[in-house]
Amino acid sequence: MYIGIDLGGTNIKIGLLNENLSVQSKLKVPTESETNSQTVMANIIAGAKKLLVQTQTRTEQIKAIGIGVPGQMDIKKGLSIFSPNFANWGNVPVVDQLETEFHIPTYMDNDVRVNLYGEWQMGAGKGKQDVLMVTLGTGLGAAMVSNGQMMYGKSNSAVELGHLNMYRHGRPCACGSSGCLGRYVSARGMVKTVQEHLAAGETSIMTDWTDDDETKLTAQMVSEAYDQQDRLAQKVMQETGEILGYGLSSAINLFNPERIIIGGGVAEAGERLLGPTQAVIAGHALKVARKVCDIVPAQLGPWAGMIGAGVYANQQGAV
Amino acid sequence: MYIGIDLGGTNIKIGLLNENLSVQSKLKVPTESETNSQTVMANIIAGAKKLLVQTQTRTEQIKAIGIGVPGQMDIKKGLSIFSPNFANWGNVPVVDQLETEFHIPTYMDNDVRVNLYGEWQMGAGKGKQDVLMVTLGTGLGAAMVSNGQMMYGKSNSAVELGHLNMYRHGRPCACGSSGCLGRYVSARGMVKTVQEHLAAGETSIMTDWTDDDETKLTAQMVSEAYDQQDRLAQKVMQETGEILGYGLSSAINLFNPERIIIGGGVAEAGERLLGPTQAVIAGHALKVARKVCDIVPAQLGPWAGMIGAGVYANQQGAV
Repeated sequence: MYIGIDLGGTNIKIGLLNENLSVQSKLKVPTESETNSQTVMANIIAGAKKLLVQTQTRTEQIKAIGIGVPGQMDIKKGLSIFSPNFANWGNVPVVDQLETEFHIPTYMDNDVRVNLYGEWQMGAGKGKQDVLMVTLGTGLGAAMVSNGQMMYGKSNSAVELGHLNMYRHGRPCACGSSGCLGRYVSARGMVKTVQEHLAAGETSIMTDWTDDDETKLTAQMVSEAYDQQDRLAQKVMQETGEILGYGLSSAINLFNPERIIIGGGVAEAGERLLGPTQAVIAGHALKVARKVCDIVPAQLGPWAGMIGAGVYANQQGAV
Repeated sequence: MYIGIDLGGTNIKIGLLNENLSVQSKLKVPTESETNSQTVMANIIAGAKKLLVQTQTRTEQIKAIGIGVPGQMDIKKGLSIFSPNFANWGNVPVVDQLETEFHIPTYMDNDVRVNLYGEWQMGAGKGKQDVLMVTLGTGLGAAMVSNGQMMYGKSNSAVELGHLNMYRHGRPCACGSSGCLGRYVSARGMVKTVQEHLAAGETSIMTDWTDDDETKLTAQMVSEAYDQQDRLAQKVMQETGEILGYGLSSAINLFNPERIIIGGGVAEAGERLLGPTQAVIAGHALKVARKVCDIVPAQLGPWAGMIGAGVYANQQGAV
């Protein structure tokens, strides 16, 4: 059996997978990411112990633990270097701490890759050899299975599609560059686009919902206003969908995937966002590449990261 | 032994490689690409026969033939679908014709991949697992070895870096899109940039060299004018180098290569072009990726395609 752990900013999801990688049991505990790394690591360990007790499983029965962690990391050393939404978190030896506690081989990877491991083996990517996964959340994350292998690159930082350069002099990005795709196509990016249009004097029903406090705007509101025929919301959805279309056209031309899986909260905008995206792809991606590639929603839902972490543990444990 | 064939627009280069993939003998015959596919195929066959006779080699001693062909193709069927610089050329069954003639297993791939097979095994990419090759010629071609495997993608059209979208409403491209990287960073692209600046009223020593006939402008002239402190040439080199820098920054963020090999005629501009490119990469590619990646010139020179075709024959023959 395998344990899969999805370390999120709000909750830690922990699952027990059997040899067929089916989820036998799962639970969710608060991350308390606003505290510090000791507390968060203690929460992970307590959660895993609770799951073992509940399922009457001994640690000897677990072949490997997989854990997906957001942010920058050293995969080989099992070190989480930096994670944007975690307080007092830096150079945390995640793998060492779990192995010391459980004496089970433990493997860490970033959250999007772990998500794709899950979708690839158990969800929307089943049986495919070339699959691009894009998660549209607070930011834009991506991972790619190329010729049946997860892409890592020389320093495990391949497929940073969120940092595809779209404009020479665009919005500044925390990476040091500007005009990065993720600065436009993400929850944060869409809110920024709304704010820019409002600053230019446009109006929207959304300002009623936020009492003119622009910091209260959310990507979710754009979908809701869109459905109420709000013109600004429709414009922002169109613009965001189009930029995503140009970004995915480049990704299709570079990776030539047979499938693109779209996940993350912003993906719930569905056709409102992806309609314009598909239209741009039809006009701009190379025909030979786009005609073999479909775009589908993620299938595993909110437990994808946990399932993927278990799949990853199985795969790494077998190496 | 292996035969490697580089089918170029002007010449066909044919080489005999031994078991260590060293070139034993080679020759060059005119392609006559302005004629038709029958003539070109007959030239390939006659050239290969000549090489066998000259080296007193029997066809039974040849384990496989590899051939690099420019343009669009169906690799599995061994079919060259379309090649931009060849007259009366369409759906040519290159592999069938060579196998019928020589009764030797024959493998075809596009010219840039074949080039990279050569550089990877015998040249600037030796011993590397993640290598991006970019050839700057009439257009911009690219190929990538990722995790020790040549990238093909679902329909063998991966790594079309020349069609990276740089501008939403840029120069129209034959692919149907606009603003593609290759429309700016290539011999043809640089000439176009010069023409645009001249049309805007700027002046250059290059107009003296061409008697004001802009169709006579070449990328080579831009390098020569640059060395004579021609301001327009310096501006065009700067602009082209910068766009290449933004394109390579995106490629570094997506592929995370440990080495980028630059080949092709335009690469002879050297630091004039790559100086601005490197400056942009230093400011715009993700630090974790750029710090593990160097940029080097191709090593195998004009025979790279032929050597690579032999390497490819060896590799495919062993599968």
